[in-house]
Amino acid sequence: MSSNPLGEFQLIQKISSQFSPAPGTTGIGDDCAVIPQKTGLDSLISTDMLIDGTHFLIEHVDPYQLGWKSAAVNISDIAAMGGKAVASFLSFALPKSLPEGWVERFINGYKDISDLFTCPLLGGDTTRSIDRLCISVTVLGQAASGKAKLRSSAQVGDLICTSGCIGDSAAGLDCILNKAESTPLTETLIKRHYLPMPRIQEGLALAQIDGVHAMMDISDGIGSDLRHILKASRKGAVIDCCKLPISDEVKQYCEQTGKNPLEFALSGGEDYELLFTISPEAEKSLEIKHFVIGEINSEEGIQWLGADKDYLGFRHF
Amino acid sequence: MSSNPLGEFQLIQKISSQFSPAPGTTGIGDDCAVIPQKTGLDSLISTDMLIDGTHFLIEHVDPYQLGWKSAAVNISDIAAMGGKAVASFLSFALPKSLPEGWVERFINGYKDISDLFTCPLLGGDTTRSIDRLCISVTVLGQAASGKAKLRSSAQVGDLICTSGCIGDSAAGLDCILNKAESTPLTETLIKRHYLPMPRIQEGLALAQIDGVHAMMDISDGIGSDLRHILKASRKGAVIDCCKLPISDEVKQYCEQTGKNPLEFALSGGEDYELLFTISPEAEKSLEIKHFVIGEINSEEGIQWLGADKDYLGFRHF
Repeated sequence: MSSNPLGEFQLIQKISSQFSPAPGTTGIGDDCAVIPQKTGLDSLISTDMLIDGTHFLIEHVDPYQLGWKSAAVNISDIAAMGGKAVASFLSFALPKSLPEGWVERFINGYKDISDLFTCPLLGGDTTRSIDRLCISVTVLGQAASGKAKLRSSAQVGDLICTSGCIGDSAAGLDCILNKAESTPLTETLIKRHYLPMPRIQEGLALAQIDGVHAMMDISDGIGSDLRHILKASRKGAVIDCCKLPISDEVKQYCEQTGKNPLEFALSGGEDYELLFTISPEAEKSLEIKHFVIGEINSEEGIQWLGADKDYLGFRHF
Repeated sequence: MSSNPLGEFQLIQKISSQFSPAPGTTGIGDDCAVIPQKTGLDSLISTDMLIDGTHFLIEHVDPYQLGWKSAAVNISDIAAMGGKAVASFLSFALPKSLPEGWVERFINGYKDISDLFTCPLLGGDTTRSIDRLCISVTVLGQAASGKAKLRSSAQVGDLICTSGCIGDSAAGLDCILNKAESTPLTETLIKRHYLPMPRIQEGLALAQIDGVHAMMDISDGIGSDLRHILKASRKGAVIDCCKLPISDEVKQYCEQTGKNPLEFALSGGEDYELLFTISPEAEKSLEIKHFVIGEINSEEGIQWLGADKDYLGFRHF
């Protein structure tokens, strides 16, 4: 039985009926989406590609979760600049072998997170693939003019902070790879891996604070991601591993399995918490939840206090 | 030998060094691109996905031409709304088996058309694929506020026009598929298939004319594309096939091969000429090169005068 009895136009119609653009905006169904621009804003654009065999295994992945995550990682990039997500664009190359209802469940997950961040799907492309599923998502966002937080603005003396705990997603992946017994604990960690939550509200609040200098989201692991800030800002850093925020769930999982929480916190990625640098004065009055984990200096590279190796994070190639 | 000895970051660096964003714009290298918005403009966003086996065959396609075409089809969507292309975003999933220098040649083609339309590459994603190459391009454009030409605005009595000849790309594809002998004529047609030229200048000029109502680009073939306008506008049309603009090259190729020029003009796609409807008064003073091929009416469907079947154009599914 064909898994996608719908033709291209019917599929587009089915998807578009679930997403209604704001008044004045033209969404799915024309050559382009048309979005009115507001004065005093900058456009932010982020795009990511996910392909079967590299980012997920089609026979194992849950389509709802993949739909959620496909949108989440790009919305998180908008959060990382201190912006608001405005609209998204979804392209996929669909193999004929997809199970019945797969695309619908994918769209459900995509829609749930899009609704949560008021970020409607306004366009995209659907096409056939011989075999491999490929997904590309582009998210358009907005930030107050000149206020987007770049990676290149870290200053010597800045405190390095995260917006939340790190390592949960990596511990969740560990549960999956090791086929850990299903318990409330492992289910919580697995959910953090599959259904990450972009920090849009936190990013918007941080963007309004002049003392917040560099910012990005933690996608590849703090070791790898912090290096991007340091390279772009031409600075160094010292990280106090004792201060890394590790959730009770990760600690508990490590107690049960004899694993090292630091490994998850340092090498794992995909937490999508914000990583930012802030002047000590601004940090004193910062009311947004955060954890100070280190300091920017003028040296080269990262000095890890309380860890025994140099953590690199995930490399794509 | 590995074809892509470069790691992800080196590849990004190599690509980004070729594209310099305008002052005040943040391009490749941060979580998002940041583009200042100008007042009185609407944002246009178009995206397309191309995958090996469906849109091209990796062992046959010329990477320079594929790079050109990947950007061209999206720039053409911006032209179809009457906009100007502002920036592009390129994602690809690269198999290890790509020949040495393949990505560089792809980028050369992509860059040449980007330069031609002052549309710099400002971001994207590079990732590994197990086997199949997948490419996704998103182009951001701008149109004067409320002036973008939609598919839904055709009015009864409008003349239907194209901005240029149709069928050249289909004749070029015919040369390729039939391994036609290489002559100046076949080379010209093949070039029109592989290196289409978006009609940005024409689209911008047409967007300024209030009497131009509906507009799109001819990508799937005039039969299929005109139907989009008619469906969105809830109108019908009559097309006079004797008036379809057919190039001397297509006529000559058909004389040599015994093929029917109308087949190429009606069923073939990928000419990327503009298809628009315009009031007869506005058409009288229209100084932009164009060909009147029919008229919008209040009937249903398309009546083809001088053709013996109902041409559908290319269906993706």
